[in-house]
Amino acid sequence: MIQVGIVGGTGYTGVELLRLLANHPQAEAKVITSRAEAGVRVDAMYPNLRGFYDLEFTVPDVDTLSGCDVVFFATPHGVAQAMMPELISRGVRVIDLSADFRIRDHEVWADWYGQPHGCPELLPQAVYGLPEVNREQIAGAQLIACPGCYPTAIQLGFIPLLEAGLIDPKDLVASAASGVSGAGRQAKVDNLMAEVTDSFKAYGCGGHRHLPELEQGLGDVLPVGSDPVQLTFVPHLLPMVRGIHATLFGNLTASAGDLQALFEARYADEPFVDVMPAGSHPQTRSVKSVNTCRLSVFEPQERGKVVVLSVIDNLTKGASGQAIQNMNIMFGFDETTGLNLPGLLP
Amino acid sequence: MIQVGIVGGTGYTGVELLRLLANHPQAEAKVITSRAEAGVRVDAMYPNLRGFYDLEFTVPDVDTLSGCDVVFFATPHGVAQAMMPELISRGVRVIDLSADFRIRDHEVWADWYGQPHGCPELLPQAVYGLPEVNREQIAGAQLIACPGCYPTAIQLGFIPLLEAGLIDPKDLVASAASGVSGAGRQAKVDNLMAEVTDSFKAYGCGGHRHLPELEQGLGDVLPVGSDPVQLTFVPHLLPMVRGIHATLFGNLTASAGDLQALFEARYADEPFVDVMPAGSHPQTRSVKSVNTCRLSVFEPQERGKVVVLSVIDNLTKGASGQAIQNMNIMFGFDETTGLNLPGLLP
Amino acid sequence: MIQVGIVGGTGYTGVELLRLLANHPQAEAKVITSRAEAGVRVDAMYPNLRGFYDLEFTVPDVDTLSGCDVVFFATPHGVAQAMMPELISRGVRVIDLSADFRIRDHEVWADWYGQPHGCPELLPQAVYGLPEVNREQIAGAQLIACPGCYPTAIQLGFIPLLEAGLIDPKDLVASAASGVSGAGRQAKVDNLMAEVTDSFKAYGCGGHRHLPELEQGLGDVLPVGSDPVQLTFVPHLLPMVRGIHATLFGNLTASAGDLQALFEARYADEPFVDVMPAGSHPQTRSVKSVNTCRLSVFEPQERGKVVVLSVIDNLTKGASGQAIQNMNIMFGFDETTGLNLPGLLP
Amino acid sequence: MIQVGIVGGTGYTGVELLRLLANHPQAEAKVITSRAEAGVRVDAMYPNLRGFYDLEFTVPDVDTLSGCDVVFFATPHGVAQAMMPELISRGVRVIDLSADFRIRDHEVWADWYGQPHGCPELLPQAVYGLPEVNREQIAGAQLIACPGCYPTAIQLGFIPLLEAGLIDPKDLVASAASGVSGAGRQAKVDNLMAEVTDSFKAYGCGGHRHLPELEQGLGDVLPVGSDPVQLTFVPHLLPMVRGIHATLFGNLTASAGDLQALFEARYADEPFVDVMPAGSHPQTRSVKSVNTCRLSVFEPQERGKVVVLSVIDNLTKGASGQAIQNMNIMFGFDETTGLNLPGLLP
Repeated sequence: MIQVGIVGGTGYTGVELLRLLANHPQAEAKVITSRAEAGVRVDAMYPNLRGFYDLEFTVPDVDTLSGCDVVFFATPHGVAQAMMPELISRGVRVIDLSADFRIRDHEVWADWYGQPHGCPELLPQAVYGLPEVNREQIAGAQLIACPGCYPTAIQLGFIPLLEAGLIDPKDLVASAASGVSGAGRQAKVDNLMAEVTDSFKAYGCGGHRHLPELEQGLGDVLPVGSDPVQLTFVPHLLPMVRGIHATLFGNLTASAGDLQALFEARYADEPFVDVMPAGSHPQTRSVKSVNTCRLSVFEPQERGKVVVLSVIDNLTKGASGQAIQNMNIMFGFDETTGLNLPGLLP
Repeated sequence: MIQVGIVGGTGYTGVELLRLLANHPQAEAKVITSRAEAGVRVDAMYPNLRGFYDLEFTVPDVDTLSGCDVVFFATPHGVAQAMMPELISRGVRVIDLSADFRIRDHEVWADWYGQPHGCPELLPQAVYGLPEVNREQIAGAQLIACPGCYPTAIQLGFIPLLEAGLIDPKDLVASAASGVSGAGRQAKVDNLMAEVTDSFKAYGCGGHRHLPELEQGLGDVLPVGSDPVQLTFVPHLLPMVRGIHATLFGNLTASAGDLQALFEARYADEPFVDVMPAGSHPQTRSVKSVNTCRLSVFEPQERGKVVVLSVIDNLTKGASGQAIQNMNIMFGFDETTGLNLPGLLP
Repeated sequence: MIQVGIVGGTGYTGVELLRLLANHPQAEAKVITSRAEAGVRVDAMYPNLRGFYDLEFTVPDVDTLSGCDVVFFATPHGVAQAMMPELISRGVRVIDLSADFRIRDHEVWADWYGQPHGCPELLPQAVYGLPEVNREQIAGAQLIACPGCYPTAIQLGFIPLLEAGLIDPKDLVASAASGVSGAGRQAKVDNLMAEVTDSFKAYGCGGHRHLPELEQGLGDVLPVGSDPVQLTFVPHLLPMVRGIHATLFGNLTASAGDLQALFEARYADEPFVDVMPAGSHPQTRSVKSVNTCRLSVFEPQERGKVVVLSVIDNLTKGASGQAIQNMNIMFGFDETTGLNLPGLLP
Repeated sequence: MIQVGIVGGTGYTGVELLRLLANHPQAEAKVITSRAEAGVRVDAMYPNLRGFYDLEFTVPDVDTLSGCDVVFFATPHGVAQAMMPELISRGVRVIDLSADFRIRDHEVWADWYGQPHGCPELLPQAVYGLPEVNREQIAGAQLIACPGCYPTAIQLGFIPLLEAGLIDPKDLVASAASGVSGAGRQAKVDNLMAEVTDSFKAYGCGGHRHLPELEQGLGDVLPVGSDPVQLTFVPHLLPMVRGIHATLFGNLTASAGDLQALFEARYADEPFVDVMPAGSHPQTRSVKSVNTCRLSVFEPQERGKVVVLSVIDNLTKGASGQAIQNMNIMFGFDETTGLNLPGLLP
């Protein structure tokens, strides 16, 4: 039984880690920090956890965290960077759910996040925690940068096509939509129920922070010599809590062959990627509460435009579930440990 | 590993049974019937089950069902009555989630359901499956009548007060509200999203079929010599999927003493009833996907009127979860087996 | 064309006033104040108003407001009290949508609102703006205290029974539920979509600020010599934006006679109260966006307990629509001016 | 005051016509038909109309309808075709909200709708009722084919770019999403609240019936000599009632210049198209209940890909509001008559 620490446990990825760890037979949450809520019982904030945890939020403390086998950061960007050097130097394994170590080029990071990177020297050892691409490196990593929610859904959808060199990387389009839990648990007028329910809108159309992560990740799987990736990414806000749906468009550069077979073959051994039967459309509710990504692929009217539909739960495969999947790989557990339950439907 | 059969598996209580059984280490769904969907894969109808079941719906057949250790009926009323005599005579254990065996007086049943009871001779052996009241009889029963969803939430809220003789049984009020999954998965205009979302209404105010079940069950826990129960029950339809909230009112007949302590003591050993801290209000989302009932008790302005708030998930503690709790008791498993996970929040 | 000023225009009752006034042929919004948003265009905050108003929020200023024929306060409690003496002394007519002048006894007000009343000397001239009870006094008033949202729905439901002396005033129960717009447009975690959608809960069960307003208003319509009102009021939060539903319970003290006819007769001449056909249940969506209250009355199983169902739109009949109805009466306009459109459905 | 007949009044476009006509000073609904509901009062089915109409549904009858100045068809496809020859021959003006007369080529229609067209001889005189393109022809038409909901939102977004020859017509992408009222008021399991709330999915990805209408309409505005339109259209189902959001992608073929200015100029005189301030994102709730289309245009990272965001209310500008706008034009009324109110927000 490994001991887990969670930094920044009051947000939705924090409670999702606790929900999933309650079902994990080989890992146990021992420390959960929050400066603002220190001293408050975890189950006073999250009544679904009553009976499962006898824990209080504590002020983050490197000594205490260093006593854990693995530390998750479920924090806004910038927090993990501040504490990371000391944790790494003490040999703690860290899984960062924030954006701090996702982008290899610290100048690009600084441009998009509006502040200098706090520890660029650690970037080379950060492994991007998308197991479907980097499983081997994850197993040996000390520092995991968990992918963003949109990047997870979008990369898993494009990867079979890009790896096979079937679509033009210079003209990718991703129209994606997320439930409001993706906006976090901050007190903002824009996220009030009376503001966002019963409505739908795009946001960040001029440029969203997930774009550089996406172009980096999509570029990593291209055959050598390919053109660089150019992605147009438009995120939208859905009037619901959990779930991301990505609708992806690419231009086939050659006769596609059997796209359904391509997708099924690519993900045949992946425990958390499910290619739907040909012609069906994945619903976000089919992955609610679980670590699965479901995919469908179409070539409408056979005109050379491929459409991929990809759904995940943004808090599970898009954050905390994927973090635990990474932990399982790092510690040599079966990759599905604690994650192998059907989703909630309806 | 016991073998489970499910009759009428296409509705929401059917899929909820399958979801919960996928996590049960000692029970396994072997047969799931549906006349209308015979031959269809279960996971084609319920994509959340993809990867968990390699089953098709089959036409219900007594021989096949008799090969199971236990058969659940997740059917509209009337169906279980038709098949029950033969199943009972073959010694099969049956847990009926429908209303067929909940009311001891077959004439009362006939009045409320508009048809004669199909096997009144079996009513005496049916045990009302509310473990918090009838745990011992459930252990030895062959035929369990699982309580309705509203009756579960309402009885658990009133029981401490009625058992203690603290409120007048002749003037009970229950104002309760259910998510739309309680209305089932029938194609009806009234349950279309465009008809019920973003709105709230009472229904069945003139008389709801759960009333006789409620008055019977509430009367069963009264001290000897009490006046009979008279309950005014108004159900409402909530614009959401899962969850029942009951707001209960009673007139204290004596100085109440410490109501909080009374509730905590009554349910101290109950694994699925959680009395909230004094002054707090339970939310339906705190029990989403789990078998727990959360309760709070108030005496506003100390004027002799007691208010109890009770929440359950109508598909879990209000139906399929309670059915599995009953199964666990019947087969001598730990009562929480397969049901001991935190709820989904947010 | 009268000139209207609105103090505190950034909240939901403010935008609702503007929406309704855009359709009013005899009144025109000239000033709308907000300290926080001064200088911001009204239609930048509320895009539904684009094309209807060429107005900016301004800092509240008594001189400017005094130039208006009528001033609405759409502010949190306490604000109207601070500005009222000067506005009243200048002869301005004021319609206060806040709680500042609803309760005649300033000590009761102070107890429930936790601060001394700012101008108790003005309380005697404040008229409680429920036209169905106080139409004549409203016509001659300078200062209107608009009823709260819950009190409007609950009083309109109980009034026919209390006026006729048919129910015991000492044992009234109101189980009511409101959409989240009733909680206002403040940035609070508790009102985030991810916190309140897909869930239902009671709140303020120990004591809600609308209770003294309710007991005062219900008492006002009792026959002389009646026992005082004692109401148990439990509000709930609905996962939707607009609408209040009140489920009311009372004990008949005499043979009720024809309750349907009683309700129809009481409201026969009321333009904004609609008694539904016998046996039907009003839905909140039937009054969305309009100033109507719809009512139904039942005596379930004819056991002496009467149940009334009452629905309003909390922002319209429960706030801004009723405020304009009061304005119409005060200025001698037809009472339905600007308010006579069908509601939005679906 | 013109007399209006409505064929097929029980669906959502029917009740929306009645809601809007209640506010129209020059038109009056006299006949509303429904075979299934003949004899039922309109306000018994739609309680929001109580007090506004004293009408019953009647069996459709050509004689009665011929007595109207204009007849709206709010029916499934195929119905208008059957009655149209006789109505046209009698000189009645008809506004068809269904798909029956939208596509000029009856063979294309037959391919997509799976049945032969019922009166191809009338197709040449049908005018496509998009006033922003065909205002003059509408004024003189006897038979209007009202555009579909998706086609309205998508065409209004692409038109300025296509007319100006700025984007490649052979590679257009539309990722659009609709509220569930777009699916109509049929009793289908797929549209139950428990099936579609709290989820999001694409549908019809292999080919949606609005595609030929879209490609025809988009092609109509191209400069002479342009390549033919090729559109990839993916519709999605939103967990809400009203609203369509279209996210449109095109490849700029030349330096775009000031796209914002282009859009503002194109729609400067259009009463129902509102170009949002640069950099802002339209929300569907900003057009709820009104006939307005709001648009924004972006060129993210200035890479030659233009993104247009377009929102409408599918039942208003996407159906019944646009139908009344057409009626206003046909009868020489001010085009905004009855349609000039702010939308409902929140």
